[in-house]
This record gives sequence, C-alpha cells and structure tokens, in this order.
Amino acid sequence: MNREILISGIRPTGELHLGNYYGAMKNILELQEKYNSYFFISDIHSLTTHPKPDDLTRNVLEIAKDYLAAGLDPNKSTFYVQSSIAEEICELHTYLSMVMPLGDLLRCPTFKEKAKKQPDNVNYGLVGYPVLMAADILIHKGKFVPVGEDQLVHLEIARTIVRRFNQLYGDIFPEPRPIMENAVRIPSLSGKGKMSKSDNADSYISMKDDNETIQRKVKKAYSDPTRIYKHQAGNPSKEGCNVYHLHTYFTEKEMLEKIQLQCSNATIGCVQCKSILSDSINSIVEPFRERREKLSDSYVYDVLAHGRMKAKESSQKVISEVRKAIGLRMF
Amino acid sequence: MNREILISGIRPTGELHLGNYYGAMKNILELQEKYNSYFFISDIHSLTTHPKPDDLTRNVLEIAKDYLAAGLDPNKSTFYVQSSIAEEICELHTYLSMVMPLGDLLRCPTFKEKAKKQPDNVNYGLVGYPVLMAADILIHKGKFVPVGEDQLVHLEIARTIVRRFNQLYGDIFPEPRPIMENAVRIPSLSGKGKMSKSDNADSYISMKDDNETIQRKVKKAYSDPTRIYKHQAGNPSKEGCNVYHLHTYFTEKEMLEKIQLQCSNATIGCVQCKSILSDSINSIVEPFRERREKLSDSYVYDVLAHGRMKAKESSQKVISEVRKAIGLRMF
Repeated sequence: MNREILISGIRPTGELHLGNYYGAMKNILELQEKYNSYFFISDIHSLTTHPKPDDLTRNVLEIAKDYLAAGLDPNKSTFYVQSSIAEEICELHTYLSMVMPLGDLLRCPTFKEKAKKQPDNVNYGLVGYPVLMAADILIHKGKFVPVGEDQLVHLEIARTIVRRFNQLYGDIFPEPRPIMENAVRIPSLSGKGKMSKSDNADSYISMKDDNETIQRKVKKAYSDPTRIYKHQAGNPSKEGCNVYHLHTYFTEKEMLEKIQLQCSNATIGCVQCKSILSDSINSIVEPFRERREKLSDSYVYDVLAHGRMKAKESSQKVISEVRKAIGLRMF
Repeated sequence: MNREILISGIRPTGELHLGNYYGAMKNILELQEKYNSYFFISDIHSLTTHPKPDDLTRNVLEIAKDYLAAGLDPNKSTFYVQSSIAEEICELHTYLSMVMPLGDLLRCPTFKEKAKKQPDNVNYGLVGYPVLMAADILIHKGKFVPVGEDQLVHLEIARTIVRRFNQLYGDIFPEPRPIMENAVRIPSLSGKGKMSKSDNADSYISMKDDNETIQRKVKKAYSDPTRIYKHQAGNPSKEGCNVYHLHTYFTEKEMLEKIQLQCSNATIGCVQCKSILSDSINSIVEPFRERREKLSDSYVYDVLAHGRMKAKESSQKVISEVRKAIGLRMF
C-alpha cells in the first residue's frame, strides 16, 4: 500500500439525516478507494461541550454503525475511535501546544464563534481545538485532509505547527494539504436552506425513518408556491420548485426528465410528484436501514478493535520518533 | 502504606547550586518520611522554552543524580521522569483542558509574567501550564502539594479544575491542598539578594565546586562593608554582615557563637572567618559530590525505570477510572 495518507474525523453527533449521509458518504466512499485513509470518530473533540457520558458512549457506537452501513470499508481504511489512541494523540497534542502561538488560536474565527455560542463554557480545550486536530492528523503523518470551507483555517494552523515543530526538532512531519470537499447541500423539506436537524423534525429525513414516515414528511414538503391547481403548469427547476430540486439528488435521470416534462405541461400533479420523490428517497434509506439493522454491537466492537490495533501501530511509531527528536529519552 | 499522597515536581534546570540544594533538599528529606510521595522531574513542562534535545536528556539525568546524591530515597517514595508517564498525564491534561475556563488562565499572574519575558514565544502550552500541573497532581490523586508562595495560584487552578470535573463526572478527584514550603533564602555571596545562577558565576556555590573553588569564591564574598581593619569590631548579625548571615546556615552552633564573639571583640578577622565558612560549606558540598560521583548512569536508569513502573501503575488506574466516568468506552 503505497497510497498517500489521508485523515478524516467524524463527529459523533447522534442521528444521521439524509443531508449528512449524502454529503459525507459520497466523500468517504470516494476517498477510501484513493488513499490510505484513517477515519476516526472524534469523541475527544466532543468533550468541549460536556456530553452526558452515556450519550457519548452510545453516540459513538451508533455513528460507527451508520458509517459501516453506508459503505465505509474497514478493510480498505483504518476506522477507529479517537479515544482508543488517546494516549498518543494527547501526548502529541501536548508537545504541539508548546510550539503553537496562542495569539493565532485566539484570533481563529471558529473559536470566536463558539465562544459567542457558549459564553459560560469558554474552556482552555475550546481554544486548543485546532491543536488537537493537528495532533489527529500528525499522529499518522497525514498528508491529506478533506475539509469544508470553514475548516481551512484549522488546517492552516496545523501547517503552522508543522513548520514550527520541524524548525525546532528536524524534519519530522509533512505539511498536511487540504482536499476540498464537494459540499453537497441537500435542501430542507421546508424549503428553508439546507437540510438540518436544527430545523423542525419534519423538515429532514432521518436515516432511521421508515417508508411511512418518509411518505408523510415528503407529502408536507414545500414545493412551487405559485402552482396552486394541478392544471397549472409548474416550474420544474432547482430555483422554481423545492421538490424538483430534491428530485435532482435522488431520482434517476430518466424519471427526472419525465417529471420535468409532465410538470411543465401539467400532466402530473404535486401529490404524485411527491410520491415519486418519497420512493426515490426510500430506495436510499431503506437498504441503508436494513444493512444497519444487521450490524450487531459485537461486530462493530470487533471492527473498532481492529481499527484501534492498526491506528496504534501507526501512532506509536510516530510518537516514539517525536519523543526522540524532542530529547525525551525513555528512562 | 496508608500515608497521604503527595506530589512534587523537580525542574531539570541543570547545575544545582547551594541555594537550591539547601532549600529543596531540606523539604524533600522531610516529606519522603511523612507522605506517600511522588517526586518527578518535569521535563515536559520545560518544553515551553524549547530546550535543545541533547541538553534536555542530559539535564534530566544530571538532576536525577543530584537528588539521589542528596538523599532522595527511591524506596521511600516514587521517583520518576514526567515524560515516562507522558501518555497518562497528557491524556488527563486534555480532558482537564475541557473543563478549565480560559479566562482564569489568561489572568494568571505567572502567565502574564512569562509572556512578558518571552514575547516571541507565547505559546498555547504556556497558558496551559497550570492545567498540565493539575494533571501531574491528579494523575495519582494527589492530596498534598508542597508549594512556594508563587505557586499557590496554580494550586488554586487545580482545585477549580477538580470541582468542575467532579461536578460533571462524579466524585473522582480529591481537592489537592498546599503544604507551604519553608522558603530558605540562602544569600548570594555578592550580598545582592538570594543565591542565584542568574547572578555572576562567583556569586553562587555550585554543588559541583571543589574545595579550592569554594575557598576562592568565599574569599571574595561580600562582608560587613563598615569593617575595614581587623582591629575594628564587626557586626556579626544577619543584617550586619553577609558572611555571618551565610554562617548561620552552614556553620555549627558552637562555632557560630565563637565567631560572633570574636568578631564583636575584633579577635578574628574577615579572612579567617571566611576560611571557616569555606570549610563549613565544603563539608556539605564535598560528601554530596562524592556520593554523586559514585552514582553510575546505569544505576540511575534502573532507579528511574523502577519509578516509572510504580508511577505507571498508579496513573493507569486513575486514567481508566477517568475514561469510564467521561463515557469513553474502550472500543
């Protein structure tokens, strides 16, 4: 395996919705073919907001199931929980913290935003988020990191850390480079912005929804507000109709063209059109749900234990090299 | 061993001088009898100032020899290098960083002072020094910490962390309490303040100085400036004569009284008085030097490996308990 090393974190945020799924999974399925990928569930990062211990444990297991059901292949990549190599990551994090200027961290826009959101809990760990992220990447000498627009600044901090560390201690780490994620913004059923759990419960499709629930939610979806009667022609375009916009992601090309034609000449009504959309969505959600249900807890534990083993091997090698470079002899 | 747990860090600052020795050793020799003590050489803390790797490695070995030669008994206490349990300390440090308010750290007077001293290197680790110190203490559930006046604020931060952590995750840690150190301030030979390596090289006695060097340095020591001729009476008091002040630490009571008398009635001159002081100092430095020379590197390695083993046992137990409390299940 001479492929380049890529690192990507997955937040254990609980229930996955169709928007996350579609965006994240498309990326992961592509990346695992091209790179020597390390995918980890970032449970340590989530501690900045103090989740309840039971919730955290359960969320980690659930998200692992989600990603496995979605097609993350633990034989093609290294799939592990961040805390299962906590020793190495946190040790590296501490060493990196000694070279990272505090000012840059305090000026980081994501820190400022979070500090505004949780003014009662601006903790030391919060400002150090990008340093811990750098440790996540560098603990395997990661060369590539898939990032969204908002994470670019964090990767820049990781690159700063690498330059400063290497200058002091020799050429240890590569400067990690971003791979810009194809930001897929699945629209909300409500027609307001992208699909999100922070909107009302009927505005998004959960990957746990059954067919009936999907039908019900899609039936209520916001569509072209100017088409009141079936005999009126619709506006089957991304801008003209939210339901059509959703179709473009989930309905096959042939059917999509048919809908466009029939909506334009008023031979199909919104009810029928939505029913087709429900079926399209269900054809993604249902097989996912079925695959997911088949994953036993013990199977997932095995997968993550295997991942831990692989991640440990890599991380221990790097931390040994780092200790030696710094002058920390193991007495 | 049902004695209370005490934690104390030793900075690997290189060459020990008589002032450090006398102050620190007196404390350590007392503490190791009374407490279940963990003494560690704080090599990770020293990274904030980026020591050269070779220097760091050597300094750790040297300071270990110093303390062993001075009487630190590795059978009575646990004597180890901080980085030899880096995994557990840094992991705990990361978890503690998630509950420690950033504001309190930024307002910490020792941070402000250091930031002023090294304005080009105000790193993230610098502001987190008290959090790492809290991890040093809590990784063994330390109950007592010997501190000087200036470290009290750090211990207060450790206590804040304990309260916040316990509130979130249950009653895990005791609130560590300070033991005020008997601050022994050996005066400088130059008469300016306390003995310190930051003054000129002849103003302090290194614990490596041989008899000849000690004689030479003491001969030049600042004494009572108002006594110009031997036939003048001197001022043998702490305030009146720096050499007399030094005598009070190193010369035995009987001889001390004799000097006081003879100086007051001008039957002893400064040259002779200083020669007696040299002998007193040498009687401390010489046996120390001889004990130290007998300590082979390999013996010290063995001692520190034994210490690491004991420290690991304690720290791993605590980190497991912490992980469980936080909800980090080992997948």
